[in-house]
Amino acid sequence: MSKNVYFFGKGKADGTAEMRNLLGGKGANLAEMTNLGIPVPAGFTITTEVCTSYYENNRQWPAGLEEEIKANMKKVEEAMGKLFGDANNPLLVSVRSGARASMPGMMDTILNLGLNDDTVQGLIKSSGNERFAWDSYRRFIQMYGNVVLGIEHNAFEGILEQKKEEKGVKLDHELTAEDLKDLVGKYKAWVKTNLQKEFPSDPWEQLHGAINAVFSSWMNPRAITYRKLNKIPEEWGTAVNIQAMVFGNMGDNSATGVAFTRNPSTGENKFYGEFLINAQGEDVVAGIRTPQEISLEASQQWAKENGISEEERKAKYPSLEEYMPECYQQLLQLRQTLEKHYKDMQDIEFTIQDRKLYMLQTRNGKRTGQAAIKIAVDLVEEGLIDQQTALLRVEPEQLDQLLHPMIDPKAQVEKIAKGLPASPGAAVGQIVFTAEEAEQWNDQGRKVILVRTETSPEDISGMHAAQGILTARGGMTSHAAVVARGMGKCCVAGCSEALIDEAKKIVTINGQVLKEGDWLTLNGSTGDIILGQAPLVEPEIAGNFETLMSWADQVRVLKVRTNADTPHDAEVARSFGAEGIGLCRTEHMFFGPEHERIMAVREMILADDVEARKKALAKILPYQKADFMAIFEAMKDLPVTIRLLDPPLHEFLPHDRKGQEEMAKEMGIPVEKVIAKVNSLSEFNPMLGFRGCRLGVIYPEIFETQVRAIFEAACALSKKGQKVVPEVMIPLVGTTGELKLIKEYSVRVAEEVMKEEGVQIEYQIGTMIELPRAALIADQIAEEAEFFSFGTNDMTQMAFGYSRDDAGRFLPAYVDLKILQDDVFQRLDQEGVGQLLEIGLTKGRATRPDLKVGICGEHGGDPSSVEFCHRIGMNYVSCSPFRVPLARLAAAQAQVKNPRRQ
Amino acid sequence: MSKNVYFFGKGKADGTAEMRNLLGGKGANLAEMTNLGIPVPAGFTITTEVCTSYYENNRQWPAGLEEEIKANMKKVEEAMGKLFGDANNPLLVSVRSGARASMPGMMDTILNLGLNDDTVQGLIKSSGNERFAWDSYRRFIQMYGNVVLGIEHNAFEGILEQKKEEKGVKLDHELTAEDLKDLVGKYKAWVKTNLQKEFPSDPWEQLHGAINAVFSSWMNPRAITYRKLNKIPEEWGTAVNIQAMVFGNMGDNSATGVAFTRNPSTGENKFYGEFLINAQGEDVVAGIRTPQEISLEASQQWAKENGISEEERKAKYPSLEEYMPECYQQLLQLRQTLEKHYKDMQDIEFTIQDRKLYMLQTRNGKRTGQAAIKIAVDLVEEGLIDQQTALLRVEPEQLDQLLHPMIDPKAQVEKIAKGLPASPGAAVGQIVFTAEEAEQWNDQGRKVILVRTETSPEDISGMHAAQGILTARGGMTSHAAVVARGMGKCCVAGCSEALIDEAKKIVTINGQVLKEGDWLTLNGSTGDIILGQAPLVEPEIAGNFETLMSWADQVRVLKVRTNADTPHDAEVARSFGAEGIGLCRTEHMFFGPEHERIMAVREMILADDVEARKKALAKILPYQKADFMAIFEAMKDLPVTIRLLDPPLHEFLPHDRKGQEEMAKEMGIPVEKVIAKVNSLSEFNPMLGFRGCRLGVIYPEIFETQVRAIFEAACALSKKGQKVVPEVMIPLVGTTGELKLIKEYSVRVAEEVMKEEGVQIEYQIGTMIELPRAALIADQIAEEAEFFSFGTNDMTQMAFGYSRDDAGRFLPAYVDLKILQDDVFQRLDQEGVGQLLEIGLTKGRATRPDLKVGICGEHGGDPSSVEFCHRIGMNYVSCSPFRVPLARLAAAQAQVKNPRRQ
Repeated sequence: MSKNVYFFGKGKADGTAEMRNLLGGKGANLAEMTNLGIPVPAGFTITTEVCTSYYENNRQWPAGLEEEIKANMKKVEEAMGKLFGDANNPLLVSVRSGARASMPGMMDTILNLGLNDDTVQGLIKSSGNERFAWDSYRRFIQMYGNVVLGIEHNAFEGILEQKKEEKGVKLDHELTAEDLKDLVGKYKAWVKTNLQKEFPSDPWEQLHGAINAVFSSWMNPRAITYRKLNKIPEEWGTAVNIQAMVFGNMGDNSATGVAFTRNPSTGENKFYGEFLINAQGEDVVAGIRTPQEISLEASQQWAKENGISEEERKAKYPSLEEYMPECYQQLLQLRQTLEKHYKDMQDIEFTIQDRKLYMLQTRNGKRTGQAAIKIAVDLVEEGLIDQQTALLRVEPEQLDQLLHPMIDPKAQVEKIAKGLPASPGAAVGQIVFTAEEAEQWNDQGRKVILVRTETSPEDISGMHAAQGILTARGGMTSHAAVVARGMGKCCVAGCSEALIDEAKKIVTINGQVLKEGDWLTLNGSTGDIILGQAPLVEPEIAGNFETLMSWADQVRVLKVRTNADTPHDAEVARSFGAEGIGLCRTEHMFFGPEHERIMAVREMILADDVEARKKALAKILPYQKADFMAIFEAMKDLPVTIRLLDPPLHEFLPHDRKGQEEMAKEMGIPVEKVIAKVNSLSEFNPMLGFRGCRLGVIYPEIFETQVRAIFEAACALSKKGQKVVPEVMIPLVGTTGELKLIKEYSVRVAEEVMKEEGVQIEYQIGTMIELPRAALIADQIAEEAEFFSFGTNDMTQMAFGYSRDDAGRFLPAYVDLKILQDDVFQRLDQEGVGQLLEIGLTKGRATRPDLKVGICGEHGGDPSSVEFCHRIGMNYVSCSPFRVPLARLAAAQAQVKNPRRQ
Repeated sequence: MSKNVYFFGKGKADGTAEMRNLLGGKGANLAEMTNLGIPVPAGFTITTEVCTSYYENNRQWPAGLEEEIKANMKKVEEAMGKLFGDANNPLLVSVRSGARASMPGMMDTILNLGLNDDTVQGLIKSSGNERFAWDSYRRFIQMYGNVVLGIEHNAFEGILEQKKEEKGVKLDHELTAEDLKDLVGKYKAWVKTNLQKEFPSDPWEQLHGAINAVFSSWMNPRAITYRKLNKIPEEWGTAVNIQAMVFGNMGDNSATGVAFTRNPSTGENKFYGEFLINAQGEDVVAGIRTPQEISLEASQQWAKENGISEEERKAKYPSLEEYMPECYQQLLQLRQTLEKHYKDMQDIEFTIQDRKLYMLQTRNGKRTGQAAIKIAVDLVEEGLIDQQTALLRVEPEQLDQLLHPMIDPKAQVEKIAKGLPASPGAAVGQIVFTAEEAEQWNDQGRKVILVRTETSPEDISGMHAAQGILTARGGMTSHAAVVARGMGKCCVAGCSEALIDEAKKIVTINGQVLKEGDWLTLNGSTGDIILGQAPLVEPEIAGNFETLMSWADQVRVLKVRTNADTPHDAEVARSFGAEGIGLCRTEHMFFGPEHERIMAVREMILADDVEARKKALAKILPYQKADFMAIFEAMKDLPVTIRLLDPPLHEFLPHDRKGQEEMAKEMGIPVEKVIAKVNSLSEFNPMLGFRGCRLGVIYPEIFETQVRAIFEAACALSKKGQKVVPEVMIPLVGTTGELKLIKEYSVRVAEEVMKEEGVQIEYQIGTMIELPRAALIADQIAEEAEFFSFGTNDMTQMAFGYSRDDAGRFLPAYVDLKILQDDVFQRLDQEGVGQLLEIGLTKGRATRPDLKVGICGEHGGDPSSVEFCHRIGMNYVSCSPFRVPLARLAAAQAQVKNPRRQ
C-alpha cells in the first residue's frame, strides 16, 4: 500500500519541493518551507494519487486513508499543542485544493474547520475574544455550507441582511458577538429545515466532507473547461492540504504582516514590509487600519513624511523591530534563509500568534522593472545567481517602463476613459483635431494631443508635432499605433468612448465634452485617458540597466535591428543597441517636410503615361537620395534594409473635397481630374489590392527611381569613405516571377549607378515574406532572394483573414472567450502563422543554406515572438526603436533557455 | 560513332514516332507518316544530340556529320528525282527546327533553300512560271538574310517598298517577274555592301548556315526564357529537319488543300475539305481565291447554297473528286489509314505537284464541342477507341457551348467592345440601369440587359429578372460574375470601355452612346458586346452527350455537387447530374422576393441588444424555414450543405442616402440612426472583416436562428416521409475555438428542434477551410468538424493577398507577363494554394480518417482544378449548376489519367 498522506511541521516534512506531481504545487511548497526550518503551521497533504483513485473507485476513499489522516492529525495536534475537536484548546484547520498547476475554477479554501458549539467555547477562551470566535464560526458555516453542502450564497446572505436590518446597522463588523451567535443558530436552523439534516458538528465529519468537496471540485465544469483550454490531463488529479489555523488577532501579542525581502519598487537591498497588531491578513489588505512599518528605519522615515512626532510614532505606530524584537530578528533570519534558498527576492506573509511567528507563504515577489534589474544585478554580485540566471529574472516588457516618461505614480488623476495602450509613455497637451493644427500649434510652442477618429499617412507630420495621439478607432496595430510606436510617441488608440465631431472641434468622452485647446493627459502604457495636466516623471536609467544589457549581448545569437524611417529614429535605435535597420519604409518620406515632395508624388500618380510619370519621378529622386543619405549616415557602417514603395497609391491623394480642390489648384488641373483619379484608385479591400511589388511590376519606373536614389546615396557616402551596406527589400512578393522581374531591373539600375559613380558597393536584394503563398514557395523564391524578412503583420492578416484596422469589432471578444490566447497582432500566433514562418525558413534555407532570415513585423519587439524567432533559427528580429532593448533581452533569454549555435 | 542523321522518304524512315527525344516532335512525326506509307516529301532529321554536342564542342559539328548530311541528301535527291544545286531540275529544301516539345521563340522555317542565280533558272523551267520562281528566290533571300545573316526585316522591306513606289503599285503580287528579278539583284547588292560579303550562292553553304541558325536559335533569349518558364532542360537540344520542297503552284496539274477526316463542326463522319488549283498553302488561307470543295457531294451542296448552276460549278469550281479523281481516291485511302493509325479525326495539309500527292502535315483536328462528343462516341462504336479514351477526347470546357443559347454563328453582328466572358451564353435585351427597373420592365414582359458599374447583393432580384448582365468593373469572380454563373445567366463583366452615367441613364461604350431601352446583345462566352438584337440559337443536346456523360459517371470516383441558393438552381443542377448541394449560401435569401425579409434583417442589424435582435430574428425564421424546405424538396434525398451567414452585415444596409431615408421611414426611426449604423459597420477591408463565423461568435442568436430554420425544415419534410440530409457548414473558421463554440450551440439547437418535433435526423456539422491558418491547423479543426469544404475563392485571396474585386488592376498584366500562368480565381493555383489544400486534407484525415472533404469555390467547375481535387483525394467538388456536366467529365478524365480507389 502506497503512502497517501504526507506530513509537514516542526521543521521536518515527509515531502519536498520536487514532489510537485504527487503533492501539488501548494503541498510541495509547504513541505519545502518546513524542511528549510521555516516555522510553518503544521499540516498534511493528501496526494493527487488519492484523487485519481477516488474517481477510479466510484468516489470511494482508498483503504487505509482514514487511518493515515487520523495518524497525521495527531502529529499536527502535537506540533501545535492543540487538539482537534477539543472544547478547551481546539485545533482548527484549513482545507485547500492544490493541483500540479494552479487551476482557477477549483475549490479554494475552507477555513476554521473544526468549529462547533463546543469548540467555539474553547476558541473564546484561547482568543479571549468572543466576537472573533462567533464570527469565525459564522463564517465557517457559510463557507462550508456553500462549498460542501452546495447551499447558494443568497440563502445565508439573506439571513445576514435581515439581521443587520433588525439591528439597524449597515456593515458586518457593526454586529456584536451576541448578534453573531444568534446568526450561527439561525444558519444551522436554515440548514436543518432546507436540507432535512443537521449541519455537521463532528469535526471529523466536517473534515471528511471538505476533503470530498475538494475532490469533487476537480470535476466541476469550470475546472474541466480550464483543463481543456490549457491541455491539463484529467489524470493529474488534485491534492488536498489540511493545515492548522493560526490567528494574528488573538490579542496584542498577536499580529499579521506582509513583507518583501528587498524593496519591490527600487530593488534596494532592504527588508521592506508592514504589519498590524491583533489583526488578520485581510485587515492589512482592506486598509481600514493604518499598517505599521516592520523596520525602525522605515518607520521613522514614514513618520517624518507624514508629520508624526517620534513620540506619537513610538506610542501609536511602533515598528515590529521595537514592538516584538525577537520576532523581528527571527524574520531577518528567515529573510536570509529564504533568499539563499530561493535565490530571489521573496514576498512573504506571516502571522504572529501569542508571540510565536508562523510563515504562511513565501513566493518570488513582484517588482517594478527598475527593481527587477537592480535585484538581478545585485544577486549576481552577491554570488547567489550567475549572469544567465540574472537575465531570466527581468521580464523584457518591464524594460518598457524605463524607456518613457511616466505619470507620477503619486499624483491624483481623474481618469475619464480607457483605450488601448498602443504606444507606451505619457503625454500632456492641448487637444487639436487635425494634423495641420498640431503642426501650427507646435510651431507656436504649444504642446498638443492630436485627437483623431483614425490617422492616415497624411497625418504623419502632425503626429510628429504632437506630444501624444488619441484615436477613437483602430487596434494595437492600426496606423496610429504602429507609427506612434515607431516614433516612440505616446498613443492611446481605439477608445470607442471618444465621439469626435471634427466639424465642431469637440470630442465627447463618456459624456464629458472637451473642446479644442482643453488639456488632456494620455497614459500610453495603460491606455488611461486623464483630464487636465497630470505631472510626469522622466525615466531614470541606472547603470545596472547597462550592465544587464551587456550580459544579454554576450549571450544572445539573434541579432536585433530596428524599424526606422527617419534619421532621428535610426539614431535613437542605435543608442538603444540596434545592429542595423531591418525595415526602412520609404512611403513616410513621401509626406516629408517639403510640400514639393508630396506634390511630386501626386504628379507621378496623376501621370497619364510613362514619360509623364518619369518626369515626376525625376523630381522625387533628389529628395529620396537625401533621405537615404541621412539614414545611411545615422546608421554608420551597419546594414540598412530599405523596403521599396508598399502602400496603394491612393494613400497619397487627398480624400476630402477640400484637399482635392487645393491639390487641383496647386497642380493647375481641373478638380474633376483629381476626383476621377481618386475614384479610379479606390479599392474595396486596399490591403489586398494594388500595392507592394505589384506597383513595381506595373510601374517599374517607380521602383527604379527608388533603387537609383538608394545607390546614388550609397555611392556618395562611399566616396566620402563611409561604409554603406544597402539591402533592397521588395515587398509583398507572392510569386517568383514578380521578384525576378524587379530584381532584374534593380540590379541593372544599381550597376548603372555604380558605374556612373565609379564606386563598387556590396549590396543585397531580398524580399519580404508576408503572404502565405510566399512562405509556401519559399524554396523557389530563395533562388532569387538574397535575404528573407518575414512581414508578420501582413502574414497574420492573411493567415487569419483579419484586417488589423477592422478586427477591433471581434478580436477583443476572441481573447476574452479564449478563442485566441492573445491579440495575434501583438504576439505572434506560433501555432498557425508560426507554421508559415517555419515552412518559409526551412524551404528558403533548403535552396540557399546561408539565407539571411529576419522578421520585421510588430512582433519583432514582442518577447515571446522573439523567442520563437530564435528557436526556429532566424538571424535577426527588427522592431521599433523603443523595443530594441526588450528584444535584446528576450533574445538573450531565448538563448539561455534554448541554446543554439548561430 | 552514333548515327547523327535519320532519313525519311519513299515509304520508309530510319526513325519512328517513339524517337521523339532524339528526332524532336516534328522529325518523329515525319518519320511516322513515312513509315505509314503516306507520301511525304523526302528529307532527313539531324538529331537533338548533335545540337547538344554542338554546344559542348564550342559550336563545332561532330566528326562525320558533314558526310552523313551529304549521303542523306543523295537519298532525298533519289526519292524526289531532283538534284540539290542543279541548274535544270533543282531540289529545293526547307530547314526547320524541331525540339521535343513545341517551343515558341525558336527559329521556325527557311523555305526554298538551294536557290541561286543558276538554280532559279531550273525552277523556271520545271514550274513554267517565271514570276513564281523569282518570287521564291526573292523570299528565300529575305528569309535567309533575316534568320541566318541577322539582317533586320526593315532593310529588305525598304527596298521592296521603294520598288513598289517606283512601279506605282500597292501590293506585292502586282510586281512582275522582271520586278522581282530586279529585287533579287538589289537584295544581294545590299548584303554585299552592308555585310562586306556576298550572299551565299552555294546551296551547301546555304544549308550549312541554316543548320547552324537552327542550333543558335536554341539559345536565343526568347527560347531561354520560354524554357525557364516551362521547366524545359537546356540539354534537350533541338533537332533540324531538312525536307524536299514541293509546290502546288506549278501549273494546272498542281494544287494544294486542307481537309478534315470528319466534319469539325458537327462531327459527322464525312470527308471535309477544300483545295485550290495551281496555288500554294498560303493562298488557301489568304482567301483571295474561292477554294473548291474536295468531295462532289459537298461541292454540289455549296453550289446550291450559293445559287451557282451545275454547269458553272463543273466549269469553274469542280470538286477534287472530279478534277483529279486518282488523287481524290488516294486521299480517301489516306483518310482511312490516318484515322486507323491516329485513332482520331485528323486535320491534314496536302499538296499535289504534277498530279503527285504529297502530305505535308497531319494532326488531330480542332473541333466544336458538339463534334468532339459525336466523334468520340462514334469512334467507340467503330471500335477504334475504348470508352475511357473517348472521355479524354472531349475538353470539358467544350461542353459549355452545349449548355447555353448562342449567337447564331452565321449572323452578321456589330461588336462594339469586349469585356470579360464572365458567365457563358448569349442574351438579348433592352438596357436598364437599376435592379428595380429590371424587375419592373420584366414584369411588363420586356427583356432587359442590366447595365451596372458593379453589382451588389441588393441587385439579386434585378439580375434574376434580366436576360444578361453587363458590368463596367470587376473581374471573373466579381459579385456579378459569380452570381450570374450561379444562375446560369449570361454576363459580361469588367468592360472598362463602358462609361455609365446612372443619373442620365446612358452608357457610353467606345464613343457609342446608348440610352435606357436601347437594344443590346451580350456574348458571355466571348465577352463580346454587340449592338442591337443578334439572332440566338438554342443549344441542341444530342443523345451522344448523354452517352458520354453516362460513361463519365461510370468511371469517376469524385462526386460532383452544386453551389445552389434557390430551388430553381437546385433543380437545374440536379437535371445536370449534381449529386447534392455543396454550398447553399443563405445570404442571398435575405434579399428574397418579400420585402419584409430584408426589413427584418435590417431590424436585426439595427437592434441595440440581444432581445431586440432575437425579436427581429423571430421574423426571419419562417422565411428561412420555407427557403430550406424548398431546397430540400428540390434536392430530394441528396445531401445539402448549408453555409451559415457569411457576409459582413453592412452588405444588407443601403449605402445611398435615398435608400437610407426610405429605410428609416419604413422602420419609423430617424435616418441618422441608419447612417450611424452604416458608418459604424463600415470597414477598411470588408473581406478581412467582421463576417463569417465571427458573426456567430459575437451574435450567436443569428446562427442559432438559421440552425433552427434548417432543422425545423428538415423535420417537417422528414415527417412527410422525405429523406433529408442536412449538413451545417460554419464559414471562415480560423481557430478551433470558433468552431467548437458554434458547433456546441448548433448541436444544442438541432437537438432541441428534433426533440420538439419528435423526429430524429442524421446530420453533420462541418466547416469551410478557406483561411490559410485553418488549413495549417486542420488536424485540430478535424477534431470538431465532420466535414471540410475548401473555400478556394477566399483561400486564393488570402494566400496571394489579392482581393478578387480589386485585382483587375494588375492580374491581367500578371498573366500577360507570365508571372502567373492563369487567372488564379478561375484556375486553382496548385503550386501555392494547392499546398494549403493538401496540408489541410492530410492533416484533417490524420485526425479523422473518414473525413469528407470537398471544394466549393469557383474552382470546383474548372477542369484542371477538378483534376487536382481528384488527385489529392477529395471526396467531391461543388460548382455552379451549369458547370456540373463539365466537372463530371473532368472528374472522369482525372480518374482515367490518375486512377485511385475512392
